[in-house]
Amino acid sequence: MAIEVFWASGSPFSWRVLLALEVKRLPYESHLLQFSKGDLATPAFVAMNPRKRVPVLRDGDDVVYESVAILGYLDRKYPEPPLFGRTAGEAGRIWRLVCEELAYFDEPAEAYILPLYGNRAEEEAAAVRAAVPVVQAELARLEVALGPNDWLAGDRISAADLTAFPMIKGLERASTKPQAGAFDLGLLPLPERYPALARWVARIEALPGYDRTYPPHWRAR
Amino acid sequence: MAIEVFWASGSPFSWRVLLALEVKRLPYESHLLQFSKGDLATPAFVAMNPRKRVPVLRDGDDVVYESVAILGYLDRKYPEPPLFGRTAGEAGRIWRLVCEELAYFDEPAEAYILPLYGNRAEEEAAAVRAAVPVVQAELARLEVALGPNDWLAGDRISAADLTAFPMIKGLERASTKPQAGAFDLGLLPLPERYPALARWVARIEALPGYDRTYPPHWRAR
Repeated sequence: MAIEVFWASGSPFSWRVLLALEVKRLPYESHLLQFSKGDLATPAFVAMNPRKRVPVLRDGDDVVYESVAILGYLDRKYPEPPLFGRTAGEAGRIWRLVCEELAYFDEPAEAYILPLYGNRAEEEAAAVRAAVPVVQAELARLEVALGPNDWLAGDRISAADLTAFPMIKGLERASTKPQAGAFDLGLLPLPERYPALARWVARIEALPGYDRTYPPHWRAR
Repeated sequence: MAIEVFWASGSPFSWRVLLALEVKRLPYESHLLQFSKGDLATPAFVAMNPRKRVPVLRDGDDVVYESVAILGYLDRKYPEPPLFGRTAGEAGRIWRLVCEELAYFDEPAEAYILPLYGNRAEEEAAAVRAAVPVVQAELARLEVALGPNDWLAGDRISAADLTAFPMIKGLERASTKPQAGAFDLGLLPLPERYPALARWVARIEALPGYDRTYPPHWRAR
């Protein structure tokens, strides 16, 4: 039975999973869902994920949700190439980076991104402004981590890269929105501001299958 | 070389790691740190964790921080008994439960707990009140998950249990504080309100070595 992935265009959490499937070169059946059509509230979907969120992965009898849990599942079921390292030491470093992204990066990044996507950054200016220095501190941390390395955890792509990348792309895209001028995130141009991050972004964009993971509605703009 | 764990009394994140070490029956050298003495800001500590947080685990050359990353590390290095299941399906279910706890439970639980611990619940009443229904929804989810099972992920203790337990104990303790009366969390008495959770708490409290993990300053009160 094929792996099935239920996802939404532009969801950074979904993007992590699509990238993992491509890195592991696993064939999958793609179900692109639309919030606006109520696809996440159908009884069939809620039976898979009562939280009505994407991504969801179904693989035979296994149904997994929460993006990082899906990465953990995939790595256990399909170990090559590994997303969480080959040794316990590598696994600890990668899980630490992933947990840091969940704990310190996702929320402030979304506090910047979502109001700009939704044209509500003026109304929510205080919250956006509060997120900026937090995001900048995390960007600086990533830039330093990437200084000597091709990938966040060292010399091989890992779950740490796949977890962070969609948020970086979201920050990039949000920074091109008209309202972004009012908030001095200082992300762009990426190659000048964060050269190591820019090279790393290009490395991920060059992965085989990357195009299949790119949010379709981002192209339409 | 012994495993060393750097922790703080009452830190739910630290408690997860101590419980994991006991479940795996691993000997460890305990370093109980004090925020108030600046123990988390010494150069030696910051060199291990630049975020100046506990817990930190040092095991030979491996230094890991972020509680859930430490659980992942320990399970990889010392696989028996497993904290993340014996099959990919079990691993996916356990990682999903752990990720749900991180994403939906930790923050509202702390939004209730910390102001009550710190005697600031009156000043922060709006935030505490906002957290209550979110915490209740997650408690109800845990109660349902435990209904047919001894443990959150099924018939064996797992990282899902160790991640949730310290937050439940924190909610319990916060609910006994004088200011808690103003917020109707409805957690206590636990055996009446959440009978499956109460039995599960007792199961964890009966684990060998549990007493060594109990926050020392909680006894002193």
